[in-house]
Amino acid sequence: MAALSVLDPVQSDLELVEAEIQRVGQVEYSFLENLLQHVLSTQGKRIRPALVLLAASFHQYRLQFLVPLAAAIELLHTATLVHDDLVDNSPTRRGKPTLHSLTDRAVTVLVGDYLFANAAALCTETQNTRVMQVFGRTLMTICEGELKQIFTAGFWRQSREDYYQKIERKTASLIRTATETGAILSGAPEEQIDALRSYGYNLGMAFQIVDDILDFVGNEALMGKPVGSDLRQGTVTLPTIRLLEEDPDNSALRRVFDDGDSSDEAIREAIAAVHRSSGIDYARAEARRFADLAVQQLDSLPPTPERAALESISEYVLDRMT
Amino acid sequence: MAALSVLDPVQSDLELVEAEIQRVGQVEYSFLENLLQHVLSTQGKRIRPALVLLAASFHQYRLQFLVPLAAAIELLHTATLVHDDLVDNSPTRRGKPTLHSLTDRAVTVLVGDYLFANAAALCTETQNTRVMQVFGRTLMTICEGELKQIFTAGFWRQSREDYYQKIERKTASLIRTATETGAILSGAPEEQIDALRSYGYNLGMAFQIVDDILDFVGNEALMGKPVGSDLRQGTVTLPTIRLLEEDPDNSALRRVFDDGDSSDEAIREAIAAVHRSSGIDYARAEARRFADLAVQQLDSLPPTPERAALESISEYVLDRMT
Repeated sequence: MAALSVLDPVQSDLELVEAEIQRVGQVEYSFLENLLQHVLSTQGKRIRPALVLLAASFHQYRLQFLVPLAAAIELLHTATLVHDDLVDNSPTRRGKPTLHSLTDRAVTVLVGDYLFANAAALCTETQNTRVMQVFGRTLMTICEGELKQIFTAGFWRQSREDYYQKIERKTASLIRTATETGAILSGAPEEQIDALRSYGYNLGMAFQIVDDILDFVGNEALMGKPVGSDLRQGTVTLPTIRLLEEDPDNSALRRVFDDGDSSDEAIREAIAAVHRSSGIDYARAEARRFADLAVQQLDSLPPTPERAALESISEYVLDRMT
Repeated sequence: MAALSVLDPVQSDLELVEAEIQRVGQVEYSFLENLLQHVLSTQGKRIRPALVLLAASFHQYRLQFLVPLAAAIELLHTATLVHDDLVDNSPTRRGKPTLHSLTDRAVTVLVGDYLFANAAALCTETQNTRVMQVFGRTLMTICEGELKQIFTAGFWRQSREDYYQKIERKTASLIRTATETGAILSGAPEEQIDALRSYGYNLGMAFQIVDDILDFVGNEALMGKPVGSDLRQGTVTLPTIRLLEEDPDNSALRRVFDDGDSSDEAIREAIAAVHRSSGIDYARAEARRFADLAVQQLDSLPPTPERAALESISEYVLDRMT
């Protein structure tokens, strides 16, 4: 995990955040405790909390408020994953069993709610109404995105604009909120809040595009899910949209989407069609464009190790796709 | 619905709250809009928003903050009902189909989340960190209660203390939050906030005990669910606990709980056993005790129409059980 050295400047504070997150998993019932600890330990690299801390580093850095905020953002993310996996009926995440495949669906609904509740309660510890407002609206945006995705699942001929709107809601909104609220809590001036918010948005867009590319080119063992999962679930992402722009009548895609054929062979052929198109190169270029835009936002910030870390994170995001 | 005349002093403000609640149901997708409107229109009498408004009436009454708070409390309540009905797999609520029986479970999870999100976002419109803190903790308390209920579902020999703790989390905590946050937002002095908070807690306890009594004596058509639903679901409430105190080896209860027999005949016999015991009278006396305690908290408040309304609400809660 050498790439995570980019988080060095905030490593010790991240440990405080981790302790706060793990505290949420300490409850009265050992069965529930086991489930919570499974969920709280199988999630990613704590990029979002790190972004909160890094974004706050340019001004007054009060850990008493910042640590609960960083934990709240990660818990909100975790809560949405728990419910998403349930909604999508995904058996695994990062190669480990999802919560609903370890227990029943009812418990999974409530554990997700419990994580939402803890996120909300931790966020109020910031005692900052603006931060809470941004947080509340982001939760709404994410839910709207999820619902939109369900209600448009049948419409596979989506435009790039549809796609960008979707990934903004699903992914970029929370990453934007991480940097924006970190900056707000540090008392940064408005133009720096704007810059860090915009950094987060663009980073989040790059992040999701790369994730969607990895669904075509990724290493299954590393990702913990089979290549082509999106196509199999009827989810159209940027490489597919690009192929459709080039070849609206592509037979492999029509077989999957119009005929609803999600056999291994049909998916394999659709993946091959995307690979033959400019879709993946195009998506890579778009990810690079967003990552570059993210870094440009940092121009006005002082050249600290934290700024360097924010720049490196955007490189790290792009590195995943190669 | 003559009983609702108790809400007269806040009727016009309640209409603003209702408009705010209905706004949440106005979304882009007509299918989702239909589901949201079904959920937002089949819920109860808006007692919780009325309590927010009444509790705020003794001081400065700023509708700009109070209306979003009252709507947030009702939406939080609605969100928990949507997920509870899903978790309990209940086909109807108040005689109308529950959301998950109209659509699929995945959409129901997300609609509940969406209502939570809207509740959280509306709550931040109060711009009052203390109110948001109380709100966030209450959401946590409710979720903890739901999870506890699931994880103790097998243990039917519960004590009165277990029961009181359970209904505090499940019901009284949100009603307490309605009056407490209303009072906070009005700028009431601490002792009045305490009094109104305590009023809400005691009212909520009475409310849930009455609800649990109605499951033994209620009119099925009026309640929209069959008598004995709690026993059928393995839920032990105060009348049953009282019977168990009198007769720990009661064969009708052992048949339902130890043998897991939820046939109509077994449930009918268990209901009859509860009726033969002092359980229902005891629960009625307890409901009266809590309702009286609620009213006593109001002693220090000026004798306004709003205080009279708060007193009447506690009578209205008791009237339901006769």
